[in-house]
Amino acid sequence: MHSKNVTAAYGSKAGSERSTTAAQPVGGLAAAAETRLVAWLLRQLGNPDIEVVLWNGTSVCPSRNPVASIRIADRATLWRLMYQPELAFGEAYTDGRIEVRGDLVALIENIYRRPEPALAQWLWRPRRPHHNTLAGSHDNIHRHYDLGNEFFRLWLDDEMVYTCAYYPHPGASLEEAQRAKMEHVCRKVVLRPDERVVEAGCGWGALALYMARQHGARVRAFNISHEQILWARDRAAREGLADRVEFIEDDYRNISGRYDVFMSVGMLEHVGPEHYGELGRIIDRCLTENGRGLIHTIGRDRPMRLNAWIEKHIFPGGYPPTLGEMRPIFEPFNFSVLDVENLRLHYARTALAWFERFERSVDRVAAMCDERFVRAWRLYLAGTHVAFTTGMLQLFQVAFARGGANDIPWTRAHQYA
Amino acid sequence: MHSKNVTAAYGSKAGSERSTTAAQPVGGLAAAAETRLVAWLLRQLGNPDIEVVLWNGTSVCPSRNPVASIRIADRATLWRLMYQPELAFGEAYTDGRIEVRGDLVALIENIYRRPEPALAQWLWRPRRPHHNTLAGSHDNIHRHYDLGNEFFRLWLDDEMVYTCAYYPHPGASLEEAQRAKMEHVCRKVVLRPDERVVEAGCGWGALALYMARQHGARVRAFNISHEQILWARDRAAREGLADRVEFIEDDYRNISGRYDVFMSVGMLEHVGPEHYGELGRIIDRCLTENGRGLIHTIGRDRPMRLNAWIEKHIFPGGYPPTLGEMRPIFEPFNFSVLDVENLRLHYARTALAWFERFERSVDRVAAMCDERFVRAWRLYLAGTHVAFTTGMLQLFQVAFARGGANDIPWTRAHQYA
Repeated sequence: MHSKNVTAAYGSKAGSERSTTAAQPVGGLAAAAETRLVAWLLRQLGNPDIEVVLWNGTSVCPSRNPVASIRIADRATLWRLMYQPELAFGEAYTDGRIEVRGDLVALIENIYRRPEPALAQWLWRPRRPHHNTLAGSHDNIHRHYDLGNEFFRLWLDDEMVYTCAYYPHPGASLEEAQRAKMEHVCRKVVLRPDERVVEAGCGWGALALYMARQHGARVRAFNISHEQILWARDRAAREGLADRVEFIEDDYRNISGRYDVFMSVGMLEHVGPEHYGELGRIIDRCLTENGRGLIHTIGRDRPMRLNAWIEKHIFPGGYPPTLGEMRPIFEPFNFSVLDVENLRLHYARTALAWFERFERSVDRVAAMCDERFVRAWRLYLAGTHVAFTTGMLQLFQVAFARGGANDIPWTRAHQYA
Repeated sequence: MHSKNVTAAYGSKAGSERSTTAAQPVGGLAAAAETRLVAWLLRQLGNPDIEVVLWNGTSVCPSRNPVASIRIADRATLWRLMYQPELAFGEAYTDGRIEVRGDLVALIENIYRRPEPALAQWLWRPRRPHHNTLAGSHDNIHRHYDLGNEFFRLWLDDEMVYTCAYYPHPGASLEEAQRAKMEHVCRKVVLRPDERVVEAGCGWGALALYMARQHGARVRAFNISHEQILWARDRAAREGLADRVEFIEDDYRNISGRYDVFMSVGMLEHVGPEHYGELGRIIDRCLTENGRGLIHTIGRDRPMRLNAWIEKHIFPGGYPPTLGEMRPIFEPFNFSVLDVENLRLHYARTALAWFERFERSVDRVAAMCDERFVRAWRLYLAGTHVAFTTGMLQLFQVAFARGGANDIPWTRAHQYA
């Protein structure tokens, strides 16, 4: 599964050094000190099966069977790596000042799988939440989702669903799994014909259209990504669903009206914990007495900041919460949590599918953007896959209703009928 | 469903007054003030469909269609009701100083279903947790579960399961539903032959024996109720399962050994939030790397103290937590919550089945104990049913594993196969 040699596919500024198997430093005192520093850093990471090769050809490799080799192009990169490991690794990898030879996925997995030492505790400590004001959210979302629909089309499924899929069986295709996910969330909220649905954060509109097409729902779908909204409206018109699905370019905080179903798939990650109470108040305002809700979100087992590089370059303002951290959405408004499902392994598989499709389209991505962009997205997609296989990240689907509402499913058997 | 006239079945010290329909007080100034006080109290409760009749025959009834009539035997009872409504109602009902004519279930439902006014906020405010030290827990458990196995046999199912059942379909019998519940929790933890299970709080042993008999597990089951342990051991011997199921009369805090499965059905209610971290540490100590766990517990949608009368007379030391309040069990130990199911409506049905069986056995209960005991348990069982129908209480089953363990079910479809 992790046999791809991901360096073969892209050029690198740092690709000129050659690996040596020398365990001793070559060069002077500074070089000797740096070698010891690398050895220390690897010890702090639990001595993963990784070789580190410095600019002067020095190799440090505590493992007999390294799965990959990290080549560091210059002294400045090494020192930045010591100071801010997560951020520096991602940035240097993007720039080509760090190159990975061997299996990128296995390399990340090796680092994440080790027992968590003091360094990791420090790296992944909780930190203050980000600011997702109305303007801030707009910028944050624009930077990721408005990269160009043509880019996402290269590696997403044919419905353009950019959230965790649901694989009914491990052999399902990404396309099957995304459709199964849409059906799964509809069943969880027991969606009925002509019910009014509000969707908070609708991506390219696949789920909103699915709910209208397959279940006869009337949907108002909110999103602040301009590119996505245009695409979704165009698709609704082409499919003849524009009278049942309204795509609204606006923030979830501006949702108005009353709905039988509140649906949000892959938005909570962008909300930020300081706004959970506000989100709960909005759901409380818009949900009918017998309404049902579903929040599908990346999460954590324990509070932890987002990877610093991901937060800076991929998902500004992102924060994956624990179930406990979601309390302010539900408890103050007397919402009753009916069902929580953790689909972590499904996201591992989804991200792997994206990664593999991305790798197959890498020449076209490079032509659209540049090599730096290719490297950044390669690292992000590989890292996402590994974060879910190792349990650094979770995927929670939380279904809820108003406290005391008895028009709720008797069992969950209908989800599997 | 709520048509039982529950007063017909038992005598009452306060049964001698006669109801009048007079809306005006009879008697002097004090009586007039008391009538106004009752009217005020009913307003604070949202003017439920209830008549209140005082010792002098005065009736206060804001509703045109009262479902039941509460008869208050004396002035002291009324004033205690003003001061400590929950506790005073339960105690006076037990003593016969408050009598209910009409439908007890509908009466409690009427009070719980009203929009929550200031009084209710005050009544059900969160309060400091109780003390469940080793000695304290022993006393608390002894007072409830050691009442005598013969008493519980009168109204529990034939397996003596005293926790929420799982009704695969609404028409299932209590016996079917208790067996279905045992199978349901076994499937949730994917129990395999010869796996080692520790059960924390095992009641009369039905689940421990089921896991051994139906799934070939080897079970060590802990309980501090002496009566229950004796019964369970006797049953294990009779069924030839004594070599696979060991019943241990000890506190969950003294669990030792390593297990593939941690199972706890209906114990967390007795643990108390101040001990959740300790419980998490014990699970962490005893669970194997690929181990699975399940906690089945009464809970809340938002933090709220237990009904004062229930806490004093029925479940000393009891506290039903919200999902969020359970965080200290999971997060510090990197447990990953895989699945949460809220079976509130199943507990409503379970408690109703118990209540109905109890009512059918009421003469035998009275012969075993006394009328005061009958009244207390009638109120407790009716109140439990209503607490679940109205959403005052929830029933959570939380399945979990170690963070990053990938030997977990792919989907939940096997639970419904």
